[in-house]
Amino acid sequence: MSKLLHNYNNAEPQLIAVDCIVFGVEDNQLQLLIFKREVEPLAGEWSLLGSFVKPNEDVSAAAKRVLEELSDLKDIYMEQLHCYGNVDRDSGGRVISIAYWSLIRVNQTHEEFHAENHIAKWVPIDQIPKLVLDHGKMVEDAIEHLRERARFHPVGFELLPEEFTIPQLLKVYEAIFDHKIDDRNFRKKLLKSDLLIQLPKKDKTTSKKGSFLYKFNQETYERLLQSGYNFEF
Amino acid sequence: MSKLLHNYNNAEPQLIAVDCIVFGVEDNQLQLLIFKREVEPLAGEWSLLGSFVKPNEDVSAAAKRVLEELSDLKDIYMEQLHCYGNVDRDSGGRVISIAYWSLIRVNQTHEEFHAENHIAKWVPIDQIPKLVLDHGKMVEDAIEHLRERARFHPVGFELLPEEFTIPQLLKVYEAIFDHKIDDRNFRKKLLKSDLLIQLPKKDKTTSKKGSFLYKFNQETYERLLQSGYNFEF
Repeated sequence: MSKLLHNYNNAEPQLIAVDCIVFGVEDNQLQLLIFKREVEPLAGEWSLLGSFVKPNEDVSAAAKRVLEELSDLKDIYMEQLHCYGNVDRDSGGRVISIAYWSLIRVNQTHEEFHAENHIAKWVPIDQIPKLVLDHGKMVEDAIEHLRERARFHPVGFELLPEEFTIPQLLKVYEAIFDHKIDDRNFRKKLLKSDLLIQLPKKDKTTSKKGSFLYKFNQETYERLLQSGYNFEF
Repeated sequence: MSKLLHNYNNAEPQLIAVDCIVFGVEDNQLQLLIFKREVEPLAGEWSLLGSFVKPNEDVSAAAKRVLEELSDLKDIYMEQLHCYGNVDRDSGGRVISIAYWSLIRVNQTHEEFHAENHIAKWVPIDQIPKLVLDHGKMVEDAIEHLRERARFHPVGFELLPEEFTIPQLLKVYEAIFDHKIDDRNFRKKLLKSDLLIQLPKKDKTTSKKGSFLYKFNQETYERLLQSGYNFEF
């Protein structure tokens, strides 16, 4: 055991944080949740929401804690993005940050967020202000990763309510990829993918004729999450 | 500044390590480089090679330092895999580990590794012994990630010498995916991808007739690395 103590004791502990990149879709646009930073340095500037990791806390639990502080929602899609570990990334000291990204369903209304302890707002991803430290780079990486995930995995469904129409799904994909998608191709490709289960009811809020509601096929979804699928439209 | 000191001082520093998953292809098999662990707990058991991150060192620099200790090779393909941050992952104490994975070209002969300071060996990925801590899980995740990357990005080329034959490339892909690939389809798809540049010479070491040597098209490669490409055969 003396060797153990010797070896581990030679290592020098460092500060570890998590930072959360929270995406949602509103007004047919991909949006990012940003916060006024509350600690120095750079207090008052726009930032991602983060926290230091506690010694008795899993790193992923720290990221969940940050999200749960914002919302009671329990089934938020969250994925680890990357560890940002450059020595000089934080002018306040040497802090290694593990970034996580999340997708919020459009029916998880933004009002459900109790950000009263924070000054927070949603911004369209083409209107993000300058963020502190390397948070801008984290967001860039997260958008790129989201687009890549969305191209080959059915993550777009994470941004939808349980029952949705094909036009709604189309808008989510247009928001993620930031370009128009041909409606007919989209419909054809998705129906062929076996990902959608048509429900015997219609949504008539957007047109008189209405659009059939669908739910997604969990089994196909799980399989495609594993194996990948080309969602390029 | 007192708020700064107050806030950052409230956080408790922790040990951070890097662990390296090194893959190579030999005997038409995907192989992993493993080491006898030198520190307690679990000294003498099979392990990945890792190191603690120093306070004045970027996390990625720590991973490069570990690889460079093993080899003089400078252009090793290295990518961050994931941060493993569960509280109980290391029975020697709370250590957060950032895992990196690497691909070694087949012509970077394994003899070039000066592992004299370590007891090391290459093992085919279906014959990996039990590894310490969560290193087995790291390797599983890395294999899954490598396969996913290889399905949609031309990473297979990282395992080849600069000039290679199509049968060599086929063997690398068969090793990564661990199944036979139809030779004709493979050749057709690759020639169509614009990734290969045929050289005016043949490799005659494996057959009398010989196989044309190719190099890969760096420009197409960069483009496909960004945009993705379906390499499923």
